[in-house]
Amino acid sequence: MSSGDALARERFSIPQGVIYLDGNSLGAMPQATPERLRALMREEWRTDLIASWNKHGWIDLPMTVAAKLAPILGAKANELLVTDSTSVALFKLLSSAVRARPGRTTILTQRRNFPTDLYVAQGLADMLGLTLKAVAADEVAEAIDDSVAVVTLTHVDYRSGAVHDMAAINQVARAASALTCWDLSHSAGALALDLNGANCDLAVGCGYKYLNGGPGAPATIFVAEALQDQLSPSLQGWMGHSDPFAFVDDYAPAPGIARFLTGTPSILALAALECGIATFDGITMAQIEARSRDLTQRFIETVEDLCGELVTLASPRDPAQRGSHVSFTHADGYAVMQALIERQVIGDFRAPDLLRFGFAPLYNDEDEVIRAAHILGDIIRTGEWDSPRFHERGRVT
Amino acid sequence: MSSGDALARERFSIPQGVIYLDGNSLGAMPQATPERLRALMREEWRTDLIASWNKHGWIDLPMTVAAKLAPILGAKANELLVTDSTSVALFKLLSSAVRARPGRTTILTQRRNFPTDLYVAQGLADMLGLTLKAVAADEVAEAIDDSVAVVTLTHVDYRSGAVHDMAAINQVARAASALTCWDLSHSAGALALDLNGANCDLAVGCGYKYLNGGPGAPATIFVAEALQDQLSPSLQGWMGHSDPFAFVDDYAPAPGIARFLTGTPSILALAALECGIATFDGITMAQIEARSRDLTQRFIETVEDLCGELVTLASPRDPAQRGSHVSFTHADGYAVMQALIERQVIGDFRAPDLLRFGFAPLYNDEDEVIRAAHILGDIIRTGEWDSPRFHERGRVT
Repeated sequence: MSSGDALARERFSIPQGVIYLDGNSLGAMPQATPERLRALMREEWRTDLIASWNKHGWIDLPMTVAAKLAPILGAKANELLVTDSTSVALFKLLSSAVRARPGRTTILTQRRNFPTDLYVAQGLADMLGLTLKAVAADEVAEAIDDSVAVVTLTHVDYRSGAVHDMAAINQVARAASALTCWDLSHSAGALALDLNGANCDLAVGCGYKYLNGGPGAPATIFVAEALQDQLSPSLQGWMGHSDPFAFVDDYAPAPGIARFLTGTPSILALAALECGIATFDGITMAQIEARSRDLTQRFIETVEDLCGELVTLASPRDPAQRGSHVSFTHADGYAVMQALIERQVIGDFRAPDLLRFGFAPLYNDEDEVIRAAHILGDIIRTGEWDSPRFHERGRVT
Repeated sequence: MSSGDALARERFSIPQGVIYLDGNSLGAMPQATPERLRALMREEWRTDLIASWNKHGWIDLPMTVAAKLAPILGAKANELLVTDSTSVALFKLLSSAVRARPGRTTILTQRRNFPTDLYVAQGLADMLGLTLKAVAADEVAEAIDDSVAVVTLTHVDYRSGAVHDMAAINQVARAASALTCWDLSHSAGALALDLNGANCDLAVGCGYKYLNGGPGAPATIFVAEALQDQLSPSLQGWMGHSDPFAFVDDYAPAPGIARFLTGTPSILALAALECGIATFDGITMAQIEARSRDLTQRFIETVEDLCGELVTLASPRDPAQRGSHVSFTHADGYAVMQALIERQVIGDFRAPDLLRFGFAPLYNDEDEVIRAAHILGDIIRTGEWDSPRFHERGRVT
């Protein structure tokens, strides 16, 4: 393997000719997923029917699949769960957090956080008569005071890729007895996280981006071990009961992380996520983070060499300050992205003017990253994007 | 097809020799599901990657799949959504309902409702300082007064199969300006429902029982058209935003049923559910309900003929009063069920003493139902169940 090769390209099935730089939105398909789901359907669901819940360990999948994320997230296996959507997972953790800090009136976040994080927090605040306070990203730490029940932030900004200093914010929060809840959607599987080392309290993450779990894959829930028995979600259900099959009328939370389960999760979706997580087997997050920095750096340098006067870098220039995606602004970014897609370079566009490119070191290699930069340079320098067909808007871009 | 044949056995893949009477817990696998998921993975996810959200209609699947439930539930297509788990869906609807009835302090339910329904309602009530009032099943109507924000009941009791009179309770609730929220988990796909005709306000249902959507399939959400714009879930997220891809900081609910979406649902799970719903194509719910009554009636009569003095019917004797499953009590019910399973008759056991058998007219035929009754009669009359190996407890039965 040359130093520019992808770390595990052979574990993925990617169409010939496509340069896929949108794994931060939907990870590519692992080779193993179709066969795993075929076997799950034919040999488990079809053959063993209801007995599969025990015989094939379905009932434990939210914990057993999550346990495989421990080295990816820098957390203990018994601190992790996969279930529900990221939004629902965030609601569960935030509602638990505010319940554990009675009398505190504020949920603190940053402006321009990922929208669903704001919507979830606002919905909860409205429900409970609390205040959602949103400040600028660099004012979060100083805004933490003893009115704050929980601080909720996205670790890597979905537009710019800018990274929050997790340990620093956790330290300020802890000093104020506020809890922290991190959204790892754009960092899980891309950066060398150390949730325990950074003293994280709570976190959620997305299964369908860098974790390659398939469209709408279940979310990750992290609750620090020391907190688990102090917290209990208001969104409680039978799968989180201490004895779900006793079918008693009164709720009693399961010990440990299992109490954060609610209803029955999709077993098909959990099995697909397991295949996505398995694409990391034998590869350390230090390797992935290092490669990610190489790829993003090489992309930025090449694009700026070729057309730096026509685009503006919208991501931190310091590799230590950014995640695994890079954004440039261009006034006609939408059309530029459509022209790129026609040339089989797949990134995405975020309004009003952001060209966004994600780099997944498991399957992206240096050669294709340089080629993508050259194609982008061509399109921008020649004005190839300025065609009516590239200006037609679809609903999702 | 003889009058005792299953209505669509050929649409399912069921192991030879097995008499599967647990479709009320996990529906059998449709023949079409593996191929549909293979195509979704290879031809959509793998090939078109992120573009699949538009190109293959993923973004609309929660609505387009749900629309196919309209004739099954007796509702309008634009009143239905499939997403999340049944527990999470119930939380969303109950939180919307109490928000729409400010000042009302009570969520009314019945004792021994399906446990997760009680846990969800209790969690919400605790969160908001409301009271969850649980009364006996036959006292619900008289307990509806002007303190009640919402009445939440399971249409068909998961133990006995007893059916609530949905229209009658809806009428009493409406007179008191209380909303109703029905859990259709044991009736959707089994009974000829008419949510509109019965003046239902809200309902949730399970996708993995009679709808054959696979383990942990997404739940159904029903919100009557006239109510949709008056209600808004507190568990709000980007998929329910009026313009999710504008990525704005402020939440604005989508018009209509889409506002009840929260996060990104599993596309694999939605596609599998679509295959499950397709097993009803061309078959009316009147046909299914009639056949269900024939099967349950024939089973009860045969079992009582063979061993009526040794088991007690725990389901209503009047077919009009029960759903599509039948329960008998037996003091050693657990061991009896294990003996049945060893003889390849798959029902389930619910503590402390319930033998439960579900009848899915799409794939269960009269002949196997009579055979199952004879095997049960044998096991009970001969005492075959009284062996140490049938008394060992697994976690899920």
